[in-house]
Amino acid sequence: MTIKVKNIFRALPELSKPEEVSNLLETPTTKIERIVSQAYSSPPGFWYDQDDDEWVMVLRGEATLEFEGGELVLMKEGDHVTIPRHVRHRVEQTAAQTLWLAVHIRGEK
Amino acid sequence: MTIKVKNIFRALPELSKPEEVSNLLETPTTKIERIVSQAYSSPPGFWYDQDDDEWVMVLRGEATLEFEGGELVLMKEGDHVTIPRHVRHRVEQTAAQTLWLAVHIRGEK
Repeated sequence: MTIKVKNIFRALPELSKPEEVSNLLETPTTKIERIVSQAYSSPPGFWYDQDDDEWVMVLRGEATLEFEGGELVLMKEGDHVTIPRHVRHRVEQTAAQTLWLAVHIRGEK
Repeated sequence: MTIKVKNIFRALPELSKPEEVSNLLETPTTKIERIVSQAYSSPPGFWYDQDDDEWVMVLRGEATLEFEGGELVLMKEGDHVTIPRHVRHRVEQTAAQTLWLAVHIRGEK
Protein backbone atom coordinates (compact mmCIF):
# COMPACT_ATOMS: atom_id res chain seq x y z
CA MET A 1 0.00 0.00 0.00
CA THR A 2 1.02 3.59 -0.39
CA ILE A 3 0.82 5.84 2.63
CA LYS A 4 0.13 9.50 1.87
CA VAL A 5 2.08 12.06 3.84
CA LYS A 6 0.62 15.57 4.18
CA ASN A 7 2.06 18.56 6.03
CA ILE A 8 -0.06 20.73 8.29
CA PHE A 9 2.09 23.84 7.73
CA ARG A 10 1.69 23.81 3.94
CA ALA A 11 -0.93 25.41 1.73
CA LEU A 12 -1.80 28.15 4.20
CA PRO A 13 -4.55 30.57 3.18
CA GLU A 14 -3.97 34.18 2.11
CA LEU A 15 -3.57 36.48 5.11
CA SER A 16 -6.72 38.33 4.09
CA LYS A 17 -8.84 35.28 4.95
CA PRO A 18 -9.89 35.49 8.62
CA GLU A 19 -10.61 31.78 9.16
CA GLU A 20 -10.15 28.56 7.19
CA VAL A 21 -11.15 25.10 8.40
CA SER A 22 -9.84 21.95 6.66
CA ASN A 23 -10.84 18.38 7.50
CA LEU A 24 -7.82 16.15 7.98
CA LEU A 25 -9.80 13.04 8.89
CA GLU A 26 -13.47 12.33 9.49
CA THR A 27 -15.04 9.15 10.81
CA PRO A 28 -18.50 8.53 12.32
CA THR A 29 -17.11 9.28 15.80
CA THR A 30 -14.21 11.66 15.33
CA LYS A 31 -13.24 14.61 13.20
CA ILE A 32 -9.73 16.08 13.00
CA GLU A 33 -9.46 19.62 11.65
CA ARG A 34 -6.79 22.16 10.89
CA ILE A 35 -8.05 25.66 11.61
CA VAL A 36 -6.13 28.72 10.45
CA SER A 37 -7.28 31.90 12.21
CA GLN A 38 -5.81 35.19 11.07
CA ALA A 39 -6.34 38.11 13.45
CA TYR A 40 -9.74 36.52 13.97
CA SER A 41 -12.43 37.16 16.58
CA SER A 42 -15.80 35.48 16.85
CA PRO A 43 -18.54 38.04 16.23
CA PRO A 44 -19.56 39.91 19.41
CA GLY A 45 -22.23 37.94 21.26
CA PHE A 46 -21.56 34.75 19.27
CA TRP A 47 -20.97 31.56 21.27
CA TYR A 48 -19.93 28.13 20.07
CA ASP A 49 -22.28 25.62 21.71
CA GLN A 50 -21.23 22.24 20.35
CA ASP A 51 -22.72 18.75 20.60
CA ASP A 52 -19.20 17.29 20.49
CA ASP A 53 -16.39 17.34 22.99
CA GLU A 54 -13.44 19.20 21.50
CA TRP A 55 -9.74 18.86 22.17
CA VAL A 56 -7.82 21.73 20.65
CA MET A 57 -4.14 22.74 20.49
CA VAL A 58 -2.36 25.82 19.17
CA LEU A 59 0.40 24.73 16.75
CA ARG A 60 1.54 28.20 15.73
CA GLY A 61 0.66 31.70 16.86
CA GLU A 62 -1.47 32.41 19.90
CA ALA A 63 -5.06 33.09 20.81
CA THR A 64 -7.38 34.02 23.64
CA LEU A 65 -10.56 32.04 24.18
CA GLU A 66 -13.45 33.44 26.19
CA PHE A 67 -15.77 31.17 28.12
CA GLU A 68 -19.29 32.05 29.17
CA GLY A 69 -19.06 33.72 32.54
CA GLY A 70 -16.06 35.76 31.46
CA GLU A 71 -13.09 33.42 31.90
CA LEU A 72 -10.31 34.28 29.42
CA VAL A 73 -7.79 31.60 28.45
CA LEU A 74 -4.59 32.60 26.64
CA MET A 75 -3.16 29.80 24.50
CA LYS A 76 0.38 29.77 23.09
CA GLU A 77 2.26 27.28 20.95
CA GLY A 78 1.78 23.76 22.23
CA ASP A 79 -1.01 24.69 24.65
CA HIS A 80 -4.03 22.40 24.55
CA VAL A 81 -7.41 22.29 26.26
CA THR A 82 -10.43 20.04 26.34
CA ILE A 83 -13.74 21.85 25.89
CA PRO A 84 -16.63 19.63 27.00
CA ARG A 85 -19.73 19.67 24.82
CA HIS A 86 -22.13 22.55 25.41
CA VAL A 87 -19.54 24.61 27.24
CA ARG A 88 -20.14 27.92 25.52
CA HIS A 89 -17.05 29.71 24.28
CA ARG A 90 -15.82 32.09 21.61
CA VAL A 91 -12.56 33.22 20.09
CA GLU A 92 -11.77 36.54 21.74
CA GLN A 93 -8.76 37.21 19.49
CA THR A 94 -6.01 35.39 17.62
CA ALA A 95 -2.57 36.47 16.45
CA ALA A 96 -2.00 37.48 12.83
CA GLN A 97 -1.72 33.78 11.95
CA THR A 98 -2.71 31.04 14.34
CA LEU A 99 -2.83 27.34 13.45
CA TRP A 100 -5.03 25.08 15.54
CA LEU A 101 -5.43 21.35 15.55
CA ALA A 102 -8.92 20.40 16.70
CA VAL A 103 -10.27 16.92 17.45
CA HIS A 104 -14.06 16.72 17.74
CA ILE A 105 -15.43 13.65 19.47
CA ARG A 106 -19.09 12.75 19.08
CA GLY A 107 -21.08 12.34 22.26
CA GLU A 108 -21.90 8.77 23.28
CA LYS A 109 -25.48 7.71 22.69
CA MET B 1 -15.92 26.61 35.12
CA THR B 2 -12.16 26.53 35.02
CA ILE B 3 -10.48 25.35 31.85
CA LYS B 4 -7.11 23.66 32.33
CA VAL B 5 -4.39 24.53 29.84
CA LYS B 6 -1.54 22.06 29.36
CA ASN B 7 1.45 22.33 27.06
CA ILE B 8 2.60 19.46 24.90
CA PHE B 9 6.24 20.60 24.84
CA ARG B 10 6.60 20.62 28.63
CA ALA B 11 7.68 17.87 31.01
CA LEU B 12 9.69 15.96 28.44
CA PRO B 13 11.34 12.73 29.57
CA GLU B 14 15.06 12.29 30.20
CA LEU B 15 16.97 11.70 26.97
CA SER B 16 17.94 8.23 28.20
CA LYS B 17 14.31 7.08 27.93
CA PRO B 18 13.72 5.67 24.43
CA GLU B 19 9.92 6.05 24.37
CA GLU B 20 7.27 7.63 26.58
CA VAL B 21 3.54 7.62 25.87
CA SER B 22 1.15 9.99 27.71
CA ASN B 23 -2.62 10.03 27.37
CA LEU B 24 -3.93 13.52 26.70
CA LEU B 25 -7.57 12.49 26.39
CA GLU B 26 -9.38 9.17 26.34
CA THR B 27 -13.03 8.50 25.57
CA PRO B 28 -14.81 5.26 24.60
CA THR B 29 -14.16 6.01 20.91
CA THR B 30 -11.02 8.10 20.76
CA LYS B 31 -7.65 8.33 22.44
CA ILE B 32 -5.22 11.24 22.01
CA GLU B 33 -1.61 10.55 22.95
CA ARG B 34 1.67 12.40 23.11
CA ILE B 35 4.53 10.07 22.22
CA VAL B 36 8.14 11.09 22.80
CA SER B 37 10.61 8.86 20.91
CA GLN B 38 14.28 9.39 21.52
CA ALA B 39 16.59 7.74 18.97
CA TYR B 40 14.02 4.96 19.06
CA SER B 41 13.51 1.96 16.78
CA SER B 42 10.90 -0.75 17.13
CA PRO B 43 12.63 -4.06 17.86
CA PRO B 44 13.68 -5.90 14.67
CA GLY B 45 10.81 -8.04 13.42
CA PHE B 46 8.24 -6.22 15.60
CA TRP B 47 5.12 -4.90 13.86
CA TYR B 48 2.32 -2.77 15.22
CA ASP B 49 -0.96 -4.40 14.18
CA GLN B 50 -3.70 -2.26 15.70
CA ASP B 51 -7.47 -2.64 16.00
CA ASP B 52 -7.82 1.15 15.78
CA ASP B 53 -7.28 3.57 12.93
CA GLU B 54 -4.46 5.92 13.83
CA TRP B 55 -3.81 9.48 12.70
CA VAL B 56 -0.32 10.58 13.65
CA MET B 57 1.70 13.78 13.22
CA VAL B 58 5.31 14.68 13.98
CA LEU B 59 5.39 17.87 16.09
CA ARG B 60 9.15 18.01 16.62
CA GLY B 61 12.07 16.00 15.27
CA GLU B 62 11.73 13.45 12.50
CA ALA B 63 11.22 9.76 12.03
CA THR B 64 11.05 7.00 9.45
CA LEU B 65 8.18 4.52 9.54
CA GLU B 66 8.40 1.16 7.81
CA PHE B 67 5.33 -0.54 6.44
CA GLU B 68 5.01 -4.25 5.80
CA GLY B 69 6.20 -4.87 2.27
CA GLY B 70 9.15 -2.54 2.74
CA GLU B 71 7.73 0.94 2.14
CA LEU B 72 9.67 3.56 4.11
CA VAL B 73 7.99 6.86 4.99
CA LEU B 74 10.10 9.77 6.25
CA MET B 75 8.15 12.18 8.43
CA LYS B 76 9.32 15.69 9.36
CA GLU B 77 7.78 18.44 11.46
CA GLY B 78 4.13 18.90 10.62
CA ASP B 79 3.89 15.75 8.50
CA HIS B 80 0.87 13.60 9.24
CA VAL B 81 -0.42 10.24 8.02
CA THR B 82 -3.45 8.05 8.57
CA ILE B 83 -2.62 4.42 9.27
CA PRO B 84 -5.72 2.24 8.79
CA ARG B 85 -6.28 -0.49 11.36
CA HIS B 86 -4.34 -3.69 10.80
CA VAL B 87 -1.87 -2.04 8.45
CA ARG B 88 1.33 -3.44 9.90
CA HIS B 89 4.08 -0.94 10.55
CA ARG B 90 7.05 -0.24 12.78
CA VAL B 91 9.27 2.68 13.72
CA GLU B 92 12.42 2.27 11.67
CA GLN B 93 14.24 5.13 13.40
CA THR B 94 13.56 8.47 15.05
CA ALA B 95 15.73 11.54 15.64
CA ALA B 96 17.33 12.14 19.05
CA GLN B 97 14.03 13.60 20.23
CA THR B 98 10.81 13.23 18.28
CA LEU B 99 7.39 14.32 19.53
CA TRP B 100 4.33 12.74 18.00
CA LEU B 101 0.67 13.47 18.41
CA ALA B 102 -1.40 10.34 17.83
CA VAL B 103 -5.17 10.02 17.61
CA HIS B 104 -6.49 6.47 17.86
CA ILE B 105 -10.04 5.92 16.65
CA ARG B 106 -11.90 2.78 17.63
CA GLY B 107 -13.30 0.70 14.80
CA GLU B 108 -17.04 0.93 14.23
CA LYS B 109 -19.01 -2.09 15.42
